[in-house]
Amino acid sequence: MKTYNEMSKEELLAAKQELEAAYQEYKSRNLSLDMSRGKPSQDQLDLSMEFMDILNSGVDLKSEEGIDCRNYGVLDGIKEAKELMASLVDATPDQVIIYGNSSLNVMYDTVARSIMEGVMGSTPWFRLDGKVKFLCPVPGYDRHFAITEHFGIEMINVPMTEEGPDMDIVEELVAGDPMIKGMWCVPKYSNPQGIVYSDQTIRRLAAMKVAAEDFRIYWDNAYCVHYLDFDHQDHILNIMEECAKAGNPHRVYEFVSTSKIVFPGSGLAALISTKENLAAIKTQMTIQTIGHDKLNQLRHVRYFKNKEGVLEHMKKHAELLKPRFDIILGTMEEGLGGLGIASWIVPKGGYFIGFDSMEGCAKKIVAMMKEAGVVMTGAGATYPYKNDPKDCNIRIAPSYPTVEELKLAADIFVVCVKLASIEKLLAA
Amino acid sequence: MKTYNEMSKEELLAAKQELEAAYQEYKSRNLSLDMSRGKPSQDQLDLSMEFMDILNSGVDLKSEEGIDCRNYGVLDGIKEAKELMASLVDATPDQVIIYGNSSLNVMYDTVARSIMEGVMGSTPWFRLDGKVKFLCPVPGYDRHFAITEHFGIEMINVPMTEEGPDMDIVEELVAGDPMIKGMWCVPKYSNPQGIVYSDQTIRRLAAMKVAAEDFRIYWDNAYCVHYLDFDHQDHILNIMEECAKAGNPHRVYEFVSTSKIVFPGSGLAALISTKENLAAIKTQMTIQTIGHDKLNQLRHVRYFKNKEGVLEHMKKHAELLKPRFDIILGTMEEGLGGLGIASWIVPKGGYFIGFDSMEGCAKKIVAMMKEAGVVMTGAGATYPYKNDPKDCNIRIAPSYPTVEELKLAADIFVVCVKLASIEKLLAA
Repeated sequence: MKTYNEMSKEELLAAKQELEAAYQEYKSRNLSLDMSRGKPSQDQLDLSMEFMDILNSGVDLKSEEGIDCRNYGVLDGIKEAKELMASLVDATPDQVIIYGNSSLNVMYDTVARSIMEGVMGSTPWFRLDGKVKFLCPVPGYDRHFAITEHFGIEMINVPMTEEGPDMDIVEELVAGDPMIKGMWCVPKYSNPQGIVYSDQTIRRLAAMKVAAEDFRIYWDNAYCVHYLDFDHQDHILNIMEECAKAGNPHRVYEFVSTSKIVFPGSGLAALISTKENLAAIKTQMTIQTIGHDKLNQLRHVRYFKNKEGVLEHMKKHAELLKPRFDIILGTMEEGLGGLGIASWIVPKGGYFIGFDSMEGCAKKIVAMMKEAGVVMTGAGATYPYKNDPKDCNIRIAPSYPTVEELKLAADIFVVCVKLASIEKLLAA
Repeated sequence: MKTYNEMSKEELLAAKQELEAAYQEYKSRNLSLDMSRGKPSQDQLDLSMEFMDILNSGVDLKSEEGIDCRNYGVLDGIKEAKELMASLVDATPDQVIIYGNSSLNVMYDTVARSIMEGVMGSTPWFRLDGKVKFLCPVPGYDRHFAITEHFGIEMINVPMTEEGPDMDIVEELVAGDPMIKGMWCVPKYSNPQGIVYSDQTIRRLAAMKVAAEDFRIYWDNAYCVHYLDFDHQDHILNIMEECAKAGNPHRVYEFVSTSKIVFPGSGLAALISTKENLAAIKTQMTIQTIGHDKLNQLRHVRYFKNKEGVLEHMKKHAELLKPRFDIILGTMEEGLGGLGIASWIVPKGGYFIGFDSMEGCAKKIVAMMKEAGVVMTGAGATYPYKNDPKDCNIRIAPSYPTVEELKLAADIFVVCVKLASIEKLLAA
């Protein structure tokens, strides 16, 4: 099989004609598919319906410690909810604050607090001369970048490798610039590539020399138990432990949520850090709220019981998700493999596939998909400022459509990638 | 009957001896009662138990508009939740954003946003030279003052009258000082006095000339349907309408919640304002979260159906609350009436009684109560910086203890007030 690069102009033109016919045919179907977000499908939501029955007027609504979960109080969450959330990432309950339904909201608040009040006693960032900066492994999660952009924080791209962020670059940057105050990380099944940070990467993150005392790693462990194949589970090192060992105990704010475990709108979010970091956070939190929804905390604990209960539940999610990933991956392999015009990593967990086209083709491909009725995540969204310098990365989100829809979307995607690539080659 | 002022030293000393014996007797009982917060009692929580059954695995979890409430999305709340919350304060649904479980959190975020990003396009407050100021009607709600103090906003006391804040003072201040950016108000059954703002007060608030274009009234309508006597309901003017009539449509952020309607930990909070104010808020909110818990929104709407449903439910709360208020008020009237050492207003709704002792006695009284095993809201808490200049205001919160406990607490309170007053008079 020839790669596209090896094909003559005539061969490319012939292929183009055929692809255009196929594309027109897809367009004529007036499709309307949404692959834009990492949104669980209705099938997945249906897995958790017993979650709706676990609390009712006939059951005791007191926590293990005898707290009436209906009433005010308990700023940082009931004991058993802390235990459950801690267990998901091998933390201890005293390292946990339970929040409301959105870990994004916790991350936003954490950045906002640092700006207005500093980090564990440091100078509030808004009082500093010069611009605060964050390191952003790329491609990465658009909503992380939206938070830092919103607050005027300068974002610095750091390329991802198959082991996580390029640590040579990270180490040099954080050691040399005290205005670098943070770094976004999705360490397990990264968004969008599904990369798992290696032990070496995590140890270097924990041990690296950092110029800013108030530097924190924003460790969004969004996919901590989100395996696609339970026979091949990845495990990452416990960053909190590694930081403690390296003498940098307070370096990490870890975020975790059950949005993609139970119902996306009604999960629990938690922040995990050292007691000292949490104490500083609580001085603000106690002004902000009396406490989050403890009935939903109780509902979680009674439903899942413990980490094993969560993992059993995640297996059912995987049974629905894996075929969806396999369709996309199989269709891409079959249609694009060996052509030299695309690359991707086969993820073993998480919600996305990070796809790289030829340079300068991503926007074109996403636009063509849209014209054919398939909405994908906007090209560029995986980079700070929506600026993918090579215009090649596309985030594929297979979870929401049905299997049938995905099959069709994947076929169209292959056609669009090929067409955009040929046009690029012909124009060269 | 003599007032204490009319009594001779000998009479006071004789009374003191008797009161001290009574106080010692109470102390010997080793009581432990909590009257510190406006927390619903267990009886009140039990009123809403069917709220726990209204959603279950057998019911449709889609909103009226067909939105699956289990999944991500809907930043500002489902349509029917907006309708319900709007109806409580005679607003329209397009004036509503539904948040999570805490209106305090909404108020905090609203102030924080103004500091970091400004108000509907104004300069962010942190960029201004000079200190931002808020008007604080006193006595008032300690958690409001905690938010403004936390952010370093200067608080200016404005005395309350029986019609609401002293508007002569308010008008003069806001007209003359562009750094006055906000004013805390609890317009209906104010915390702690239970005062209802008069039509005249509300019209003056709506029409007054304000130096700061980004001035907002923080209208915490916490007790909008919280009547103690449904045969004598107070009604306040619709501030949004009055502001619109007066040509100041964007002047108000109104806050409302169901924390004291259903379960305090699991209610809905809402922010109510003009479409223009809400649009500015949503540019930030869309970065902060994907959306709040829609299942809890649905649970509310299915349980209460409409404002009439809420009012029917509030009648049951009143049946439990009114006897508690009556015990305190009756005991105080009987024990302290006519002595010239205390004053209070009889509230017709809300959660508190605002009590005024002789000057310089409030701290003493609260300390004596504590020594006798009854925790009250700290003296001074009803003023900014916890500084009650006359040391005379005490917030009484009758909701949480049982009727029997309250009877006892009220008796002890009368003894403590008398003792502190006599000591003050003897020392004079």
